[in-house]
Amino acid sequence: MAKEIRFNAFEMNCVTHQSPGLWRHPEDRSRDYKTLSYWVGLAKTLERGLFDGIFLADVQGLYDVYGASPDAALAHATQVPVNDPLLLVPAMALVTQNLGFGVTVNLSYEPPYAFARRMTTLDHLTNGRIGWNIVTGYLDSAAKANGRIKQTAHDDRYEVAEEYMQIMYRLWEESWDADAVVADADGGIYADPAKVRAIRHEGRHYKIDAVHLSEPSPQRTPVLYQAGTSPSGRAFAARHAECVFVSGPTKEIIRHRVGYLKDARRAVGGAPGSILIFALATIITAETEELAREKYADYRSYADPVGALTLMSGWTGIDFSKMDPNDIVQHVENDAGRSALENITRADTSRVWTVREVAEHVAVGGIGPVFVGSPVQVADQLEAWVDETGIDGFNLAFAVRPETFASVADLIVPELQRRGRYKSRYAEGTLRQKLFGGGPLREWLPAALPTKVA
Amino acid sequence: MAKEIRFNAFEMNCVTHQSPGLWRHPEDRSRDYKTLSYWVGLAKTLERGLFDGIFLADVQGLYDVYGASPDAALAHATQVPVNDPLLLVPAMALVTQNLGFGVTVNLSYEPPYAFARRMTTLDHLTNGRIGWNIVTGYLDSAAKANGRIKQTAHDDRYEVAEEYMQIMYRLWEESWDADAVVADADGGIYADPAKVRAIRHEGRHYKIDAVHLSEPSPQRTPVLYQAGTSPSGRAFAARHAECVFVSGPTKEIIRHRVGYLKDARRAVGGAPGSILIFALATIITAETEELAREKYADYRSYADPVGALTLMSGWTGIDFSKMDPNDIVQHVENDAGRSALENITRADTSRVWTVREVAEHVAVGGIGPVFVGSPVQVADQLEAWVDETGIDGFNLAFAVRPETFASVADLIVPELQRRGRYKSRYAEGTLRQKLFGGGPLREWLPAALPTKVA
Repeated sequence: MAKEIRFNAFEMNCVTHQSPGLWRHPEDRSRDYKTLSYWVGLAKTLERGLFDGIFLADVQGLYDVYGASPDAALAHATQVPVNDPLLLVPAMALVTQNLGFGVTVNLSYEPPYAFARRMTTLDHLTNGRIGWNIVTGYLDSAAKANGRIKQTAHDDRYEVAEEYMQIMYRLWEESWDADAVVADADGGIYADPAKVRAIRHEGRHYKIDAVHLSEPSPQRTPVLYQAGTSPSGRAFAARHAECVFVSGPTKEIIRHRVGYLKDARRAVGGAPGSILIFALATIITAETEELAREKYADYRSYADPVGALTLMSGWTGIDFSKMDPNDIVQHVENDAGRSALENITRADTSRVWTVREVAEHVAVGGIGPVFVGSPVQVADQLEAWVDETGIDGFNLAFAVRPETFASVADLIVPELQRRGRYKSRYAEGTLRQKLFGGGPLREWLPAALPTKVA
Repeated sequence: MAKEIRFNAFEMNCVTHQSPGLWRHPEDRSRDYKTLSYWVGLAKTLERGLFDGIFLADVQGLYDVYGASPDAALAHATQVPVNDPLLLVPAMALVTQNLGFGVTVNLSYEPPYAFARRMTTLDHLTNGRIGWNIVTGYLDSAAKANGRIKQTAHDDRYEVAEEYMQIMYRLWEESWDADAVVADADGGIYADPAKVRAIRHEGRHYKIDAVHLSEPSPQRTPVLYQAGTSPSGRAFAARHAECVFVSGPTKEIIRHRVGYLKDARRAVGGAPGSILIFALATIITAETEELAREKYADYRSYADPVGALTLMSGWTGIDFSKMDPNDIVQHVENDAGRSALENITRADTSRVWTVREVAEHVAVGGIGPVFVGSPVQVADQLEAWVDETGIDGFNLAFAVRPETFASVADLIVPELQRRGRYKSRYAEGTLRQKLFGGGPLREWLPAALPTKVA
């Protein structure tokens, strides 16, 4: 039987996420990102479409590489202003029963003890639907905002992250036994102290000696997401991640990454199926191909190339404001930025790409593919991507909010259901159980769990 | 015209807050603290009663002074387990229009840049109804949980807090001009970069160089709450707080504190009316005095003296497990703890108090008064407290959740309304406008605002 296709909504608590300029479209509600009504309406739409989850990106810093200033980011609203993503979850949880919440939090700026409680609290309030996208940060501006001169070197960040994760696992999994809370009203005992213990850790970066403040939540450890693309990021994902987001313009690039991730998971003793992989994509659809193409052309007319270059400068470290729009990007020799550029130019290797062309390409849907067409055409493409790359589903970006997601729920989901490629109802249980079935937490990764280490 | 009386609900994201043992009462829903349904139901009840706000206490650490271990706190659920309070706000905001949210956050464990965004996000999502109860921490266990050997000395904590507040004011009030966001779709400009600026601060404890991540929210600075009772705590309140919580068993003690706070506010150049003062109290009421007394007796039969002593040991630093229940507490000579004990024993100075008696007294309603009676009787007492002490209202603790609050909303509020001592509808605007009218932020405190300092 062909694999079911999974959908996540790729969102961010800000005006412009992956499609700069589209906030100006008359149907777009991006300017309502500050309101609860936008988010609860979206959550209901996604649950109607049986999306596995909403994935909330975040960045603690401004894109200030373009023009060596944050001015372009502010003027074009490229991921700034950006509000806290965690605080959207309780309201969305209140109006849904099954939707999962994968939230990006940069561990560099979260004291571990308080953060462990924050996530356990959300797991309680969502009844086991919380996930954490583990990020270690990539903008110098975020480091400066937190009293550091410069971002910590890349590999050191992952060393800090490893230590942080050990503390998290111990607080979430070890501090309270599963049967610690007895809530015995007659005996007057809420928790059995013999089944609760302080976690003691003294490492290179953190020191802690404390009982976890929260009682065990349905999942204990939130579902762990990761999106790192560097070698150390992928090694980290192999050890910790249950869901991984990948992005690239072609099936070939994605297939390569899927293979790499599955091999890395195998190398740490886990089954390849213990990791779910979602690829970035944007769907523009309507009842007919013609209507979809019209819609796409309409959207493109609102695209904002300067906003796109502002994002790309942040991602690559290259100040595109200093380049001529007609410069050929294949000639860029900056090591740090080349892979991000290749992500775009490899979409069509038969040609050279100018800076202007890259900007226009990125301005709708970022560096992922854009599937444009009737429901049948889009479903064909989605099936081909899943079947030819080994991914498990898509992390769907929006062009126009919430229309992009509503049209997926109303047009694409029914088409995939007709083909037997999409669930007709949610599975029971927590987010982890919905994604992986009833198995215990991360059985594939005994070495990472401190209970197995001790 | 007699002053209107204001109500806040004094809550905490845990099982036992001020009334140990009452979680065992058959009508009590404290064990549902982990669910959104408890909190949204409560929020609706409070808004029905035109409460100004819900005030969420918090503590980042366990009460481990009693018996030199956290065992008693765990067994008796005294403020542990305790979940994050901020995450309750978005769901409660979704089901209410006017209720304010005063949330306790310990600045010692919150990196300033991320915390400033968190509060701005909540101010956006609540449409200007967020408040912050500024705490600097008092449990050694919290310090150990955060990689420190011992809690920072008391006065040093307030020095750190002063520097922290300067950063907060600058991020909230100075980084973005009020008209920075133009959202000009035709011109393609979201924010005018000329009206947004990085905040640069390099002090003894913090260093920051960053644009605030969030655009201006309705209140910018949340309504600031404070509850410190030490001299440095009260000096801090005089400079920063808009609402202050006080607690004590008698009108005389409270009148003294009110006078002290108003004088301190005057001394820093503010009008005495620029600070609202709420006193801790618990109301046990029913249609008749007899029914109220029966209810109170029923509640007291569930009171848990060991739980009460566990709380008192944490508050005073005295290990009451080492004292005999018949010991006289007036003989305790521990300086740190004496004032907390006096808070209780002064309720009746005509007698000596044993440890057991104090524990039983504290076990319903903590160290505040308990008003028991018919609506008329309780309203009489509330009026007397307000008129004789100068307070503006009450911070109402619960005995049984949510019954204590529901009976206030349904019985006490109508009685006070009949007397012209309680509003019949909410005022318009943000929480600050509801509390203080239309004036600008904290006009009483020019020195604290960095725009005036610079």
